Amino acid sequence: MSDPTPRERMIVTAMELFQREGFRATSWRKLVQESGAPWGSAHHYFPGGKTQLGVAAVEMAAGAVKAMIERAFAPDRPAPEGVRRLFEAAARGLEQSGFRSGCPVTTVALETTPDSAPMAEACKAAFALWRAALRTGLERGGVGGARAAALATAILAMFEGGLVLARAEQSTEPMREAAEAAAVLAGGGA
Amino acid sequence: MSDPTPRERMIVTAMELFQREGFRATSWRKLVQESGAPWGSAHHYFPGGKTQLGVAAVEMAAGAVKAMIERAFAPDRPAPEGVRRLFEAAARGLEQSGFRSGCPVTTVALETTPDSAPMAEACKAAFALWRAALRTGLERGGVGGARAAALATAILAMFEGGLVLARAEQSTEPMREAAEAAAVLAGGGA
Repeated sequence: MSDPTPRERMIVTAMELFQREGFRATSWRKLVQESGAPWGSAHHYFPGGKTQLGVAAVEMAAGAVKAMIERAFAPDRPAPEGVRRLFEAAARGLEQSGFRSGCPVTTVALETTPDSAPMAEACKAAFALWRAALRTGLERGGVGGARAAALATAILAMFEGGLVLARAEQSTEPMREAAEAAAVLAGGGA
Repeated sequence: MSDPTPRERMIVTAMELFQREGFRATSWRKLVQESGAPWGSAHHYFPGGKTQLGVAAVEMAAGAVKAMIERAFAPDRPAPEGVRRLFEAAARGLEQSGFRSGCPVTTVALETTPDSAPMAEACKAAFALWRAALRTGLERGGVGGARAAALATAILAMFEGGLVLARAEQSTEPMREAAEAAAVLAGGGA
């Protein structure tokens, strides 16, 4: 990979700070300082300030998690196996961050919905993107079309909630238990 | 109910502000002002400031959600029915708040774990209390003991994640889909 541009560094820094400390509590000053961007160029890249940078960070996170879902549900992988791989990959990422970085969108969504329309829209779009990717993965893994949409929502809920519990407990155990239940659902345990 | 004391009003105000706007972004000044407490008495009730008040707010929220779980799983109610009632009650509360107030602990947990030990501990204890209440409800509703513990974690994950998605989408639909999947699991769909 090529080196990130200063603008990309700002977005990555924002994504990390928001998921660790929250959107509201992270100041523009801190975002600029931690990304190493010169003060003037920060305003140049994001004339809309923290909200514009925040939307870009949520969009980058949306793409990253979508790619994670697609990797987990590689073609021809049965749905329960895809579910397990997805939850394992996220649990591993959480553990590697010292249980600091969970979902890059959840904290921001809870802080900004419905008060900041641009942020709320970006978060909503991220969850919609993940639901669609999950639905596609489930369908390719053998879950019938009509059932796949509702199941994608339920499994995304378990995924997000499992990350919250795992972070609060500083343990991957809740993600493992959520993964097992989600795999049961994906396997047609109905 | 008798009128709340000024101390109780501060805790309730804190619980509401934290779940809407987050712990970090809510200032001590705003907490005191919105609760209507005289400045001096606020420090008297909570000499440990925002962290001490935050712990009290999480503890109050922990008790409130535990009571909600116990009401949903009234004695002799089959586990899937208890699950549905719990998710419905929470979805109704979220809707009535204009999709502003979801889980009173999740946002705080994501913002403060692991950096603030007292807050992280309080959030962890809240989730543990809810898991235990859910486990008891599932067992009384017919779920075998060995399975009930893991299932309680998975269903709590769906509950928390469902509230995140419902808030982000400003719709109770994700909670309904999560509830159906959780009811399937509680009914032994394995």
